[in-house]
Amino acid sequence: MGGTFDPVHHGHLVSASEVMESFSLDEVIFVPTGEQPFKEHRRVTPAEHRYLMTVVATASNPRFTVSRMEIDRPGKSYTIDTLRELKRQLPGADLFFITGADVLPQILTWKDADELWSLAHFIGVTRPGHTLDRTGLPETGLSLLEVPAMAISSTDCRARVVDGKPVWYLVPDGVVQYIAKHGLYRPETARVDDVAERRGRAANEGTTARTALPPRAVGAGQ
Amino acid sequence: MGGTFDPVHHGHLVSASEVMESFSLDEVIFVPTGEQPFKEHRRVTPAEHRYLMTVVATASNPRFTVSRMEIDRPGKSYTIDTLRELKRQLPGADLFFITGADVLPQILTWKDADELWSLAHFIGVTRPGHTLDRTGLPETGLSLLEVPAMAISSTDCRARVVDGKPVWYLVPDGVVQYIAKHGLYRPETARVDDVAERRGRAANEGTTARTALPPRAVGAGQ
Repeated sequence: MGGTFDPVHHGHLVSASEVMESFSLDEVIFVPTGEQPFKEHRRVTPAEHRYLMTVVATASNPRFTVSRMEIDRPGKSYTIDTLRELKRQLPGADLFFITGADVLPQILTWKDADELWSLAHFIGVTRPGHTLDRTGLPETGLSLLEVPAMAISSTDCRARVVDGKPVWYLVPDGVVQYIAKHGLYRPETARVDDVAERRGRAANEGTTARTALPPRAVGAGQ
Repeated sequence: MGGTFDPVHHGHLVSASEVMESFSLDEVIFVPTGEQPFKEHRRVTPAEHRYLMTVVATASNPRFTVSRMEIDRPGKSYTIDTLRELKRQLPGADLFFITGADVLPQILTWKDADELWSLAHFIGVTRPGHTLDRTGLPETGLSLLEVPAMAISSTDCRARVVDGKPVWYLVPDGVVQYIAKHGLYRPETARVDDVAERRGRAANEGTTARTALPPRAVGAGQ
């Protein structure tokens, strides 16, 4: 399952669970995208934070894992490289690539798009009411699945934090706490986190603590 | 916040959190409805189970509580009785009654509807794309709030359990485990649970254990 996961939310987790059930998959590997410094004119949260939030969100599910593959690969992330790597690691496996249906049309503009369809079956998850333009997409090798919980969006979660609103129940409790602890999505802490991430480690808690919620508030519903 | 909560899901919890934030409320009291043996031509799960699932779902949030008021009141549940009782218990409080927007029009057919509007401000939460018919509803004293996570529905959660599909991430983990432990929403266990509930206690685990998932499966994402 590929995505930015900025942050990972219950819609992603419901989708993974639903696809695993519908397609009888053994496992779902979450693959957070690598560095995309600017996406849709906004700064993307450092990969290490997105990776760790996804680890926290999936920790209790023995059939969900998270891969560092794309975040550790230098340069721009291409799905084709990820699928080739997974095919090499899991030679006998049938691969399914799950992602947001709105991202699927972009796949055709990626390099070696033709080979993609031979490597995996593609599954686009959509929120209710969202219609996908299938123009240019192949007739086979692609499934679409409507998942009501995908009405939850990462964009909305980030906007809520910026506005000082709660994200409880939109994301798992551990992710609420991770966001508060590291001051993610708050304009005033972006620079501190960037510096910390460039060193390849989690954000420096000593310098971000002043913007985090007090422990009591972090630990329980606000 | 009134509702059947059969079962309580993340959409309810997001709604309560969102309304608490938007209207600067001090507390949200979840009030599961009393016995409604038949609703929309289906059997409603015994009140005790719905009450306890709501307790489990809200336990970690210090500003969420659950009231037994409606489930302990004999006869049909009327919102007017609940609001009068809350007004008596909390004489200085400004009351807000939160419920699904689709339920609001029914309020007008309840007894003493005119008095309702003097007791509380009503807030209807809607899923995206749902339009409310305001015919017959007053111009003031009523707010509508669109909550994307309300795309999650209790009906869908029940149907998934009937079909043997997972409800992980649609409802809190503790509620997933509660449903499995008591065999809720599985046709073959309905009678056992009904008998247990009529005794006013939680379902008899000894007789429902055979239909519950094994402990390992219950404890982690399936």
